[in-house]
Amino acid sequence: MSMTLSTPLMNQLGIVKRHIERAERAAVDQLATFGCATVHEAMGRVGLMKPYMRPIYPGAQVGGTAVTVLLHPGDNWMMHVVAEQIQPGDIVVAAITAECTDGYFGDLLATSFVARGARALIIDGGVRDIRFLRDMGFPVWSKAVSAKGTIKSTLGSVNIPVLCAGALVQPGDAIIADDDGVVVVPAADAVRVAGVAQKREDLEAEKRAKLASGILGLDMYDMRGPLAEAGLRYID
Amino acid sequence: MSMTLSTPLMNQLGIVKRHIERAERAAVDQLATFGCATVHEAMGRVGLMKPYMRPIYPGAQVGGTAVTVLLHPGDNWMMHVVAEQIQPGDIVVAAITAECTDGYFGDLLATSFVARGARALIIDGGVRDIRFLRDMGFPVWSKAVSAKGTIKSTLGSVNIPVLCAGALVQPGDAIIADDDGVVVVPAADAVRVAGVAQKREDLEAEKRAKLASGILGLDMYDMRGPLAEAGLRYID
Amino acid sequence: MSMTLSTPLMNQLGIVKRHIERAERAAVDQLATFGCATVHEAMGRVGLMKPYMRPIYPGAQVGGTAVTVLLHPGDNWMMHVVAEQIQPGDIVVAAITAECTDGYFGDLLATSFVARGARALIIDGGVRDIRFLRDMGFPVWSKAVSAKGTIKSTLGSVNIPVLCAGALVQPGDAIIADDDGVVVVPAADAVRVAGVAQKREDLEAEKRAKLASGILGLDMYDMRGPLAEAGLRYID
Amino acid sequence: MSMTLSTPLMNQLGIVKRHIERAERAAVDQLATFGCATVHEAMGRVGLMKPYMRPIYPGAQVGGTAVTVLLHPGDNWMMHVVAEQIQPGDIVVAAITAECTDGYFGDLLATSFVARGARALIIDGGVRDIRFLRDMGFPVWSKAVSAKGTIKSTLGSVNIPVLCAGALVQPGDAIIADDDGVVVVPAADAVRVAGVAQKREDLEAEKRAKLASGILGLDMYDMRGPLAEAGLRYID
Amino acid sequence: MSMTLSTPLMNQLGIVKRHIERAERAAVDQLATFGCATVHEAMGRVGLMKPYMRPIYPGAQVGGTAVTVLLHPGDNWMMHVVAEQIQPGDIVVAAITAECTDGYFGDLLATSFVARGARALIIDGGVRDIRFLRDMGFPVWSKAVSAKGTIKSTLGSVNIPVLCAGALVQPGDAIIADDDGVVVVPAADAVRVAGVAQKREDLEAEKRAKLASGILGLDMYDMRGPLAEAGLRYID
Amino acid sequence: MSMTLSTPLMNQLGIVKRHIERAERAAVDQLATFGCATVHEAMGRVGLMKPYMRPIYPGAQVGGTAVTVLLHPGDNWMMHVVAEQIQPGDIVVAAITAECTDGYFGDLLATSFVARGARALIIDGGVRDIRFLRDMGFPVWSKAVSAKGTIKSTLGSVNIPVLCAGALVQPGDAIIADDDGVVVVPAADAVRVAGVAQKREDLEAEKRAKLASGILGLDMYDMRGPLAEAGLRYID
Repeated sequence: MSMTLSTPLMNQLGIVKRHIERAERAAVDQLATFGCATVHEAMGRVGLMKPYMRPIYPGAQVGGTAVTVLLHPGDNWMMHVVAEQIQPGDIVVAAITAECTDGYFGDLLATSFVARGARALIIDGGVRDIRFLRDMGFPVWSKAVSAKGTIKSTLGSVNIPVLCAGALVQPGDAIIADDDGVVVVPAADAVRVAGVAQKREDLEAEKRAKLASGILGLDMYDMRGPLAEAGLRYID
Repeated sequence: MSMTLSTPLMNQLGIVKRHIERAERAAVDQLATFGCATVHEAMGRVGLMKPYMRPIYPGAQVGGTAVTVLLHPGDNWMMHVVAEQIQPGDIVVAAITAECTDGYFGDLLATSFVARGARALIIDGGVRDIRFLRDMGFPVWSKAVSAKGTIKSTLGSVNIPVLCAGALVQPGDAIIADDDGVVVVPAADAVRVAGVAQKREDLEAEKRAKLASGILGLDMYDMRGPLAEAGLRYID
Repeated sequence: MSMTLSTPLMNQLGIVKRHIERAERAAVDQLATFGCATVHEAMGRVGLMKPYMRPIYPGAQVGGTAVTVLLHPGDNWMMHVVAEQIQPGDIVVAAITAECTDGYFGDLLATSFVARGARALIIDGGVRDIRFLRDMGFPVWSKAVSAKGTIKSTLGSVNIPVLCAGALVQPGDAIIADDDGVVVVPAADAVRVAGVAQKREDLEAEKRAKLASGILGLDMYDMRGPLAEAGLRYID
Repeated sequence: MSMTLSTPLMNQLGIVKRHIERAERAAVDQLATFGCATVHEAMGRVGLMKPYMRPIYPGAQVGGTAVTVLLHPGDNWMMHVVAEQIQPGDIVVAAITAECTDGYFGDLLATSFVARGARALIIDGGVRDIRFLRDMGFPVWSKAVSAKGTIKSTLGSVNIPVLCAGALVQPGDAIIADDDGVVVVPAADAVRVAGVAQKREDLEAEKRAKLASGILGLDMYDMRGPLAEAGLRYID
Repeated sequence: MSMTLSTPLMNQLGIVKRHIERAERAAVDQLATFGCATVHEAMGRVGLMKPYMRPIYPGAQVGGTAVTVLLHPGDNWMMHVVAEQIQPGDIVVAAITAECTDGYFGDLLATSFVARGARALIIDGGVRDIRFLRDMGFPVWSKAVSAKGTIKSTLGSVNIPVLCAGALVQPGDAIIADDDGVVVVPAADAVRVAGVAQKREDLEAEKRAKLASGILGLDMYDMRGPLAEAGLRYID
Repeated sequence: MSMTLSTPLMNQLGIVKRHIERAERAAVDQLATFGCATVHEAMGRVGLMKPYMRPIYPGAQVGGTAVTVLLHPGDNWMMHVVAEQIQPGDIVVAAITAECTDGYFGDLLATSFVARGARALIIDGGVRDIRFLRDMGFPVWSKAVSAKGTIKSTLGSVNIPVLCAGALVQPGDAIIADDDGVVVVPAADAVRVAGVAQKREDLEAEKRAKLASGILGLDMYDMRGPLAEAGLRYID
């Protein structure tokens, strides 16, 4: 149930890995139905990107398999290289080697990504042509929105492990994103986590009904004893 | 027209105050119709929370009486304790003892809060299950959106005075929130401030009509004299 | 094709310049159809305001000629002075002499600005009465939303060159703003830039069609050679 | 052991309160010897200002009684008014009605404050003439350093309760500041807190000696049992 | 007393202007003795860079004539180009076309800059080899410190007008920097501003002596009347 | 030259790994002499922590082997657990499961860490007792300084891979830190990277001498040709 990661690979620029092992599609699609918060819980509360990653429009909820790209600041050349590696159901995860809010992605690249079957873009940088992206229904989670254009002159890499917004993403990992944020599930764990999430979801439906009927969490979770033991005092 | 505040109470953890004096309901409801900016003006420009407090979806405008809760970072145990103290028409105001953007509140707690009659949540931290909250129409003003889960292990307090996003909130105070932000009106001042706000609103309607007809503020407010006296020069 | 800028004017407070040379209306209106990112590209990637400038509601796309105003922190007196200088088709660009997020602009000023024919407000500070502005369809790009009121006691200037959100704006410049941000086109360049933008737009339509059909940017832009030359390696 | 706070006073501008009840000098001086972290612990972990408050030079450690001043953004007029209210051993605590980093305080005011017997300035804004202040040994804790000058045109208040950097400060409270930050002790609690801090300090000296000798906190605090009970597992 | 600025030049990349008109050396050196805050006041409170520009070590106070350089994010190629344009007494002012905190400057470039006679670097980005720079006494004011290296592949420009940290800098302008920040004086204004600053400094020495003797600013500036007129009330 | 990383381990809380493979001591000590920027270059420009990680006092330059600890927000219990795992020459690297600036580390823990042979602490959170740490010469690189105390109630883990300030750290990795920041060298790469860094350092000494003698980088690096080819134009 573990996997090996060749960390030196993280150091290398100018590499495109063509064959990656993707998380099982059915599990990814199932994870997508639960949304980011539930999957994050099912993962044991790890794998979440930083909360500065926000969707460019509200309401999207997607899941897909990661193809990763590492970009140089102010340079989106590798975006065209990663486009070729996209397979239907993938989500592109873009990391930058430095903090830079330029707009690395817009309407043309979105058109190309969609033609390749991409479901979304996750980028630890900026994006532009927001209205176009919203109109075409291509969701993006990003650190910034910026009309600032980029050049195409420096190599990065495609499908190497990347650190994106505080999370380690390996090519093929399952990515789940919605209005709450973005979570990463290692490919090898996707099936297991989907099972855990399903159980959690089943339990929550029941709890939700109880709470909606007016039952308090204090009683439903039997918290009154532990709270008293911890020293909680009620005063008037 | 003043009130006493036992400041040492702010220091105490592990306390739940059951009986609080709430601002008069009719005044709170009237204040809600004016919105945050007008009430803030009627207050004499005090009581506003920091502008980083933003609604999770646009368009909500609410007023209610504060029940307060002080949380430990990364721990939402007291959210269940405060739920029991909610009365219809209340707004929960949550402060954290440290800066932490975790998601302290989501669909289950929202279901419980709504069942108790809460109108909104104001939290100087993070919140999750945004889409669910939007769909059910439960507004939240927060510092962040984050899927990051919290634990339930440390005591805080309920219905003590708290500092939330730069504003002092005492249990029972009137809270008015809309797309512009969140303002706090001391319970004892609610009726008076509602009156001031109503007068201001009446005046503004008249002013708005004049400005819409093309009359300049320069003339409507008789500013040309003071501006010239202050040294304003027109050049070509 | 160059223009003169009397920089010492930037130093002067208490001045209102009444006659300014506005960018040609037809060019400005044409620029507005392209949006911020395309115009920024047509400008040679300059003139963009910092990405912290965000619209108060999504979907607006406007162009207009700048009337500028320099405000003192926490003081919006000059907003009434600038209102008189607005001509139909103008966009007010407001800079503050210090970083301050107060709400310098709300429903009354918006009513006055609209009566004068203003198309939008760009402000390197805060704004309030957001819902009112959205309902009346008056777009604002700002650094913050804040209900915090301002006073009217200190002089600034109107129609002097200002630095707003990292961009130099001279009165009469063309301002193009949409969901991607705000870009400034010098008045003397408006016609030429509109032409460049139109050509770019024509080209993009063609490219978009190709990319939508599945052709890769790698091939459309003939990038494979340069990438190989730069050392890109494909591995399995 | 409690005190009354007339909160409406927080609303009023244009007021100078001349007679305030200061924390007992001996207790304040004793608190100063412990430093910010120890006093914060002795307070029960409340009363701390936000960590963005930093000293303008390292190494200073002071204690004093608060005289408070509320300033308008970009306006330091009230700094001259508060100067007159300073008594030897006081620390001036300055809050601004909005977030603004201007330099409200420099060499002239520092000269005046020192002549009046002030020990330090705590300001939720900016300060300038840093080198001068360091050379004369007048410590300041601030949100920013900025050469930006301010005007003198709008009233604030002196010796009213203020919210400064997230902490409630009432005139006369004890203020303790060092490289770790700034903590506020209610005047009525100063003697008691000094006692608690002294006990804590005595205990810490003993603990420090044990830890220095190589004894682990795990053993000194008897943590091994609770850790095992909580589920901690050692693996190889 | 005005000067012309060819703004389209700001748009052009790939240009090195060799001959620039520098502010008069004697005036620049005189301005340096006053420091940033006094010069900013003498300028009429304009020309200041944003307060996020901080010195890499405390205590430096310098003045020089600006040679400007515009860099691409993550690329310091033009730093070598600007080195050749440095004349003894110059200060290099570096702007980046996007926000990027990479370390564009370190020990080797500093060695070269010093050999050319540069007095300091002002950079709206990052810098590294801080200890080396401090040991050799070469002061830098920057937005960040970062060991992150940059590439050398994209053209920028040298000696064009730049917007650096919110201030317009034209080649040849006087730059004054100390612990308080960085201020820009247009070359044509240097002599006049130095005169104003000298007068201000003379006045301040006198005022400082009065304040040190215990005279209050309230009396020295005759503020009591205006304060009373503005409504200031003293209470007990 | 690669190593395996069991990523699921990153998910587990409540684990202490006792036996880790440390980078070779001699290589680590050699790396420390080069400093952060040179090692980062020798690594191929990867492995750097975010630039918000700053030393609590200037001038420290250290190298050591990582023992890692994952903390819960507002809880430093595991700091005592990690203390036992410290061996002479280690550097403790502390990650928090959420963004929280509390002061997790102070004089007592520092005394214990030093007694165990620790050389430094790297923490993606806050630290306190700064003056004590500076006086005893124990360097810390942190995101914040805060007197805010923490509790001891929730398990984290020790010696699992952690993401700290944007960098992946595995137990045993070499950590190099100085005024420029913090860089991580995988244990298996330490010897090789030390060799590369030494070569780079040798070359730089030579380059530095040339630049100091007045030779330009333009000539030393033969940049004039490439710059001209890229289109650089010199104008007067």
